[in-house]
Amino acid sequence: MVRSRSQGIIARRVTDDGSSRTPDEVIVEEPLAIHLDDTQVTSTMRTPGHDFELAAGFCLTEGVLHDAPILGIRYCGTGAPVDSDFNVVSVETGGVAPAPTPRLGSTSSSCGICGADAIAELTERLHVLPAYQPWDLDQLLMLSATLRGGQALFEATGASHAAAAFDRDGRPIVVREDIGRHNAVDKVIGRLLLDGRLPALDSALFVSGRASFEMVQKAWAAGFSALVAVSGPSSLAVATARRAGLTLVGYARDGRGSIYSPDHAV
Amino acid sequence: MVRSRSQGIIARRVTDDGSSRTPDEVIVEEPLAIHLDDTQVTSTMRTPGHDFELAAGFCLTEGVLHDAPILGIRYCGTGAPVDSDFNVVSVETGGVAPAPTPRLGSTSSSCGICGADAIAELTERLHVLPAYQPWDLDQLLMLSATLRGGQALFEATGASHAAAAFDRDGRPIVVREDIGRHNAVDKVIGRLLLDGRLPALDSALFVSGRASFEMVQKAWAAGFSALVAVSGPSSLAVATARRAGLTLVGYARDGRGSIYSPDHAV
Repeated sequence: MVRSRSQGIIARRVTDDGSSRTPDEVIVEEPLAIHLDDTQVTSTMRTPGHDFELAAGFCLTEGVLHDAPILGIRYCGTGAPVDSDFNVVSVETGGVAPAPTPRLGSTSSSCGICGADAIAELTERLHVLPAYQPWDLDQLLMLSATLRGGQALFEATGASHAAAAFDRDGRPIVVREDIGRHNAVDKVIGRLLLDGRLPALDSALFVSGRASFEMVQKAWAAGFSALVAVSGPSSLAVATARRAGLTLVGYARDGRGSIYSPDHAV
Repeated sequence: MVRSRSQGIIARRVTDDGSSRTPDEVIVEEPLAIHLDDTQVTSTMRTPGHDFELAAGFCLTEGVLHDAPILGIRYCGTGAPVDSDFNVVSVETGGVAPAPTPRLGSTSSSCGICGADAIAELTERLHVLPAYQPWDLDQLLMLSATLRGGQALFEATGASHAAAAFDRDGRPIVVREDIGRHNAVDKVIGRLLLDGRLPALDSALFVSGRASFEMVQKAWAAGFSALVAVSGPSSLAVATARRAGLTLVGYARDGRGSIYSPDHAV
């Protein structure tokens, strides 16, 4: 079942020429609970679509999957033909993944990870990236231009984030859009995981927003060797990318931008 | 103690004229755990500064404070003069606030709330806004222009979100910046709460990004009668604003924009 990612409504639009009631399109936002085997591991406000990829990507990047194989992914609805049936997804490992432990206070304003302990836990399990071929900087700085025109949801609603995996030739492998920037990244990574394409050492992860800590952590967890962001990085993002050996590019727009780490990789 | 919100680093900057190693400034991102009495209720990646306001605002807007009075707010550090001492804040109600119950899976990609049940819980406790004087639409559409120049952190780093409360004359009451847009909103609301200025029925909440569900829910919880966003709203944001009776304005830039609800309020 393909569910709509945008919704038509009537709004009053004000322009320089006055104000009128006009059809408008807004991005759909709905909660998705993600279960791993029998335990709920998160709930996120997402745009419907590619839910299985989102669930798989989240379980991988947040470290709850560990190295367990994914045996199946399914909606957990009751069978009634209502939308809410599609708002719970279960990733099945046959109980191989260790049961997540309940914790309080894992909500977060802008990310799925939480607190200094969680940061340590998330990155301590990750290894420094193996040696990789330096990236062509000019190519990385053109990824945003390549992606332009491929963001249908953004063009319709003006309110979605995009993430994409690119190959060494600057060609997009997977492109995803979502109201949540972390969801867009998890959807890209989930697709690569389900296709057996991780770790993605010869790919670059592109994000349409900023490079916060968690963007770097997710890119690292999936084994990307480059993260390219249209906006700027945070202090913790730069520090984490340097630890990982990840090529971090910020403000990447039309051939211009800044390289934060590591300097020798480009 | 005033902690730095941005950090100088060396980056390689690429412009049309070539590439060079240049001093750059990035936004600081660190975890903050928020406790209510003896229980941690959340942890968020935030930019240091106005931590007490963030903690107070979060406890109010996420409904964990209920109607308990705030007797004090303090850092929970061990006393050692290290930065991490400033990454745990406790809001004290003397045990009047009901103890939050542990829950699993409350992480979220872009918000502090989670799942259909949590959405119901968050909004069912809120009442439809009382009648209020209609807003001057032209004035609301100029708030972004008013705020321009007042976003020091954004000017330094290009990577912060802003939130602000405005009065009926279009004057800013409180302006806050943070790497997380929800944090910026909680800091504004926390300041108003600590100043005894809630509910903020005669104020408009301005956000520099999109109007997602949680932006509407936080504005509603603080009693604002208008929410003005520079970018677009989500489907759930529009539906929730209509239930609340909240004036919702999107794409508010330099006198242009769209009004989503309610039509009679402007």
